[in-house]
Amino acid sequence: MPLEVVDAIPRLRDRLKIDRDAAQTIGLVPTMGALHEGHLSLVARARAECTTVVVSLFVNPLQFDRSDDLAAYPRSLDADVRLCASAGVDLVFAPTVSEMYPTPLDCTVDVGRIADHLCGRTRPGHFRGVATVVMKLFQIAQPDRAYFGEKDAQQLAVIRRLVADLNVPVTIVPVATVREPDGLALSSRNRRLSPDDRRVAPVLYEALRDARQRIAAGDSDAARVRQMAADIIGQRQGVTLEYLEIVDPDEMQPVQVVNRPVVAAGAVWIGSTRLIDNVVCVPPA
Amino acid sequence: MPLEVVDAIPRLRDRLKIDRDAAQTIGLVPTMGALHEGHLSLVARARAECTTVVVSLFVNPLQFDRSDDLAAYPRSLDADVRLCASAGVDLVFAPTVSEMYPTPLDCTVDVGRIADHLCGRTRPGHFRGVATVVMKLFQIAQPDRAYFGEKDAQQLAVIRRLVADLNVPVTIVPVATVREPDGLALSSRNRRLSPDDRRVAPVLYEALRDARQRIAAGDSDAARVRQMAADIIGQRQGVTLEYLEIVDPDEMQPVQVVNRPVVAAGAVWIGSTRLIDNVVCVPPA
Repeated sequence: MPLEVVDAIPRLRDRLKIDRDAAQTIGLVPTMGALHEGHLSLVARARAECTTVVVSLFVNPLQFDRSDDLAAYPRSLDADVRLCASAGVDLVFAPTVSEMYPTPLDCTVDVGRIADHLCGRTRPGHFRGVATVVMKLFQIAQPDRAYFGEKDAQQLAVIRRLVADLNVPVTIVPVATVREPDGLALSSRNRRLSPDDRRVAPVLYEALRDARQRIAAGDSDAARVRQMAADIIGQRQGVTLEYLEIVDPDEMQPVQVVNRPVVAAGAVWIGSTRLIDNVVCVPPA
Repeated sequence: MPLEVVDAIPRLRDRLKIDRDAAQTIGLVPTMGALHEGHLSLVARARAECTTVVVSLFVNPLQFDRSDDLAAYPRSLDADVRLCASAGVDLVFAPTVSEMYPTPLDCTVDVGRIADHLCGRTRPGHFRGVATVVMKLFQIAQPDRAYFGEKDAQQLAVIRRLVADLNVPVTIVPVATVREPDGLALSSRNRRLSPDDRRVAPVLYEALRDARQRIAAGDSDAARVRQMAADIIGQRQGVTLEYLEIVDPDEMQPVQVVNRPVVAAGAVWIGSTRLIDNVVCVPPA
């Protein structure tokens, strides 16, 4: 069947009910559009594992703490639909803001301490917005499986916690970060980088790899590892460090002594563009 | 099939999956146990409308703001199961606290201004607890229909809002309050009333009927109607008024001028027992 683009919730539900009644496996790939190879790796995984693949394209205003960031977020619906068609997607769900938020919400998903650090510290309300829209998408599409990129490590941890805490009947499938040859993690925001910005952008991954290497070599002092990595970014012209933290992979809480696998995660500003990335760091056995 | 009592979430899901795959309609009646005729009217309605009727019995600690109230809440599992069996219930879901809350929740359902008045004002966190556990039960049982008593008017409004805001695929069915011959609304808490308390308990409904009558007769001044009704309770020995408010039925916000149907809702303390009730009040056309 050819790709169908749906903007109305009832239409999506009717269509998915047919598949569900036929005992098909439904996979959901929630995105904010501006699709790149990273998203396509989520889609490919969903395509391999599910009978029906749904990609949602929705720039969710609830998760933006700054209106200028929301306004500047890249949008490319036609190109996104073409990419989905090529990737064998069955359904694209591209609702309007008023379809998702016909009235201001009074009930939302509150996220606790798992949102206290990293992006949650500097973007108040961001993870409430993420958890709420993802919960809505889960209720609308009722997928068996849902696919999230590991690039957004804290988002993935929040969604896993949401599913566990509220007993949502969906399997969360994490998918590895896709990178450019120079290491830069793919992100829709990368297309906002000037050529000069783009050249310096891989510094975040460079710093995180440094942390990973030090931890692999036996340095268990998280503060020192963190400082060494931060220094790499601090030395680079045109890049401002927002945060670089060593946290545990489940609760996203800062770690003092690295004695089990941790996540090194960072955010930098390059001009007016904010980029995030993370790596898993495993201490020697 | 005989009634089955289930305490494990996976077992409930497996059992309901069979029914769901057979395209049966699943009805959920969420309760805190200590069942009475009010609950049984919910069950009867579910029995008439659904193929599979599930009653949950769970005294939810998350919605109690006072540990003494939680400890004193009546529990009668064996009697509840017998009542369910007589009422033709298919499944009783009676989980332990650790089955529902294996770890402290980090993601919960936050309820906004709809919880600002009435019970929400005096019981901080109560509706967060209600909305969160109901959301969990909806995700666990995935019912087509769920049944709630109109006696808990604000709870019903919160659940309706939860379902609308988060797109939960369930139909909420409100069921009329069941009353004793003298007007007292049935409640599990009534069994904690002494004979003297019991004699005075109908005063809340008496006051609410007074408000309904004045509004039906054309008094549109909510403050005056409210005061008249509150005076009826204030004159009665042994009864303390917690609140009596005139609110709109959807948002549960106080109304100044009654020019459309409103809800008059009240809470009283009789000894150490707290009782609530409400009536819909319709102004003359």
